Amino acid sequence: MRIILEGKTLELRAIWFEDKKKGIVSMIDQRLLPWKFEIFRSRSWRDTVLAIKEMIIRGAPSIGAAGAYAVAQAAIEYDGDLKKIRKATEEIKNARPTAHDLAQRVHQVINHVSSLSSTKDVVNEAIKEAERIANEYVEINKRIGQNGEKLIRDGMKILTHCNAGALAAVDLGTALAPIRLAHQRGKKIFVYCTETRPWLQGARLTAWELKMEGIPHALIADSAAAYLMWKGEIDMVIVGADRIASNGDVANKIGTYSLALAAKENGIPFYVAAPISTFDFSIRCGENIVIEERSALEVVMVRGWDRDSKKTKHIYITYEECTAVNPVFDITPSKLISGYITEYGIFKNVSELREFIEKKSFH
Amino acid sequence: MRIILEGKTLELRAIWFEDKKKGIVSMIDQRLLPWKFEIFRSRSWRDTVLAIKEMIIRGAPSIGAAGAYAVAQAAIEYDGDLKKIRKATEEIKNARPTAHDLAQRVHQVINHVSSLSSTKDVVNEAIKEAERIANEYVEINKRIGQNGEKLIRDGMKILTHCNAGALAAVDLGTALAPIRLAHQRGKKIFVYCTETRPWLQGARLTAWELKMEGIPHALIADSAAAYLMWKGEIDMVIVGADRIASNGDVANKIGTYSLALAAKENGIPFYVAAPISTFDFSIRCGENIVIEERSALEVVMVRGWDRDSKKTKHIYITYEECTAVNPVFDITPSKLISGYITEYGIFKNVSELREFIEKKSFH
Repeated sequence: MRIILEGKTLELRAIWFEDKKKGIVSMIDQRLLPWKFEIFRSRSWRDTVLAIKEMIIRGAPSIGAAGAYAVAQAAIEYDGDLKKIRKATEEIKNARPTAHDLAQRVHQVINHVSSLSSTKDVVNEAIKEAERIANEYVEINKRIGQNGEKLIRDGMKILTHCNAGALAAVDLGTALAPIRLAHQRGKKIFVYCTETRPWLQGARLTAWELKMEGIPHALIADSAAAYLMWKGEIDMVIVGADRIASNGDVANKIGTYSLALAAKENGIPFYVAAPISTFDFSIRCGENIVIEERSALEVVMVRGWDRDSKKTKHIYITYEECTAVNPVFDITPSKLISGYITEYGIFKNVSELREFIEKKSFH
Repeated sequence: MRIILEGKTLELRAIWFEDKKKGIVSMIDQRLLPWKFEIFRSRSWRDTVLAIKEMIIRGAPSIGAAGAYAVAQAAIEYDGDLKKIRKATEEIKNARPTAHDLAQRVHQVINHVSSLSSTKDVVNEAIKEAERIANEYVEINKRIGQNGEKLIRDGMKILTHCNAGALAAVDLGTALAPIRLAHQRGKKIFVYCTETRPWLQGARLTAWELKMEGIPHALIADSAAAYLMWKGEIDMVIVGADRIASNGDVANKIGTYSLALAAKENGIPFYVAAPISTFDFSIRCGENIVIEERSALEVVMVRGWDRDSKKTKHIYITYEECTAVNPVFDITPSKLISGYITEYGIFKNVSELREFIEKKSFH
């Protein structure tokens, strides 16, 4: 992603291997954005575990890459001692127990090296595999971008929700990949980003990514989206997905369902951009996806930038002991979705996708 | 409304004439709630203008009452000198130029006294008329409460949006009146209140009113409402209205439209509680209602309570110069509304209401 810092333009990923000899992994500290740009330098797998736990890095693909890098860091640190590396992987996986990509990618690296006899090979192959995983995420996003970009016409006003951007997905993003590419190809677009309460990923991260990329945008309250659709101010919605059931129902950041209902009502195309790996054919429908509920404090308090103290600060928006309910995701029924933008193309529905998979004998 | 303060239970309105001799009007300072309970004592019509401008008092009926009281204060201050009072009314009306009730009620008081010849009568009648207006608001709300309460069954979970409570409507509230009464009559109910970005009236005011009244409640992010409806967690929605067009389309706080769409989709009754005066038969449909847009800063910043400094504080939720779009109201099409709870009963649609009006030759 493009980052402009003190007049200089940098091209950075959300996370990268900075020094393969010393095992240093760098990542953009997402806790401080958009107010402070800081790189967190992880000097050991334990630092990376901390970074995942503390939300220095977030977003399923970015966390997946972080997990893979952490295993490589452990391999470097323990000079390829598989027993020690395996022990570390358990801790790495548990940095965020509900993150599907994290466990998957950690296993992928450890499985890749577990049959190697030379400790030197273990170290080198762990590094290679971790890099391969990170690159694969970026490659998939690139293809999602190329496929989705075709949907975007010059002059379009696009709504996105939460942050399905480069910060969340190593680089480019899922929902933001087509938007980035359309802009790079010279299409004049305008992006509305929802603030995305309670965590404000849209306000903090998406608005910042769009600013860095030079894409014209405006922030709106989540509940203003439907009005703008009604008014004819929005031509298209693109969101990401956390998990997609086998009937096409989508679990994504809380608020996605409302946006999809308003889009349907107003005849606005509603696209979900996600890698094929997001489809979980073991889940029948949205009702079977478990929705995580998080702390009431995330609703009762808002975190933001205090200009006076030049620090981030939590303030109460209601009385201190107020009860709150805080579901983090919701389910958008497949009937509200115009199409799924994947690395293999755009599928109107899951039947089309299944047909494609059978034809390609894709697993 | 019931207010519990340091163990004592008070029964207060949002605004009242505290001293008719000295012309003192008191009001609950709504800027500091729920963190500090303070009474603002307005000692002249100019103080009341300030209170309206500074949002010490808000909500159409409460502002209407404040305007009426301010004219009475001017009458007291100028010893019934109509020329001076008329000059003051111009400033009072302009305290919030878009507030329909304010201008209407100010005119009502000045018209009531303009033909009186004795200055003493002018003073006395201005006070009486202002009191009559405030009492009428409360009486209407009481009847809205009685009519709406019949819809509420024991055990219901009710969603409301923004603050259509006692603070907004002199006392009892419009949308909150049926809820208050159901609770008082011993029905076990649970209220979900939306935080209502950007101004957070739900989080700050509705949650506080419900707490004071002892009604079990939980705060939710605006965008979580649809998920809770999908999950079967909400049995009914009651909201207020700022203006209702002659086809039944409702202008209300931004976010109302989203809630109505989600309610319709999930088969949940969606009621609008408002006095008959909210219907504006000069407006054909929602498209003809002008929607106020307010400052981007309301979206870019959040105001809340800073526990450290024991003060309210504004913090940024995005980068400082971020563009934002901030429509304050939206339009809910009549087809999404199950019924209008008014002081004359519940009407399923505008045709029913018109029939009633014709029969009663109510103008």
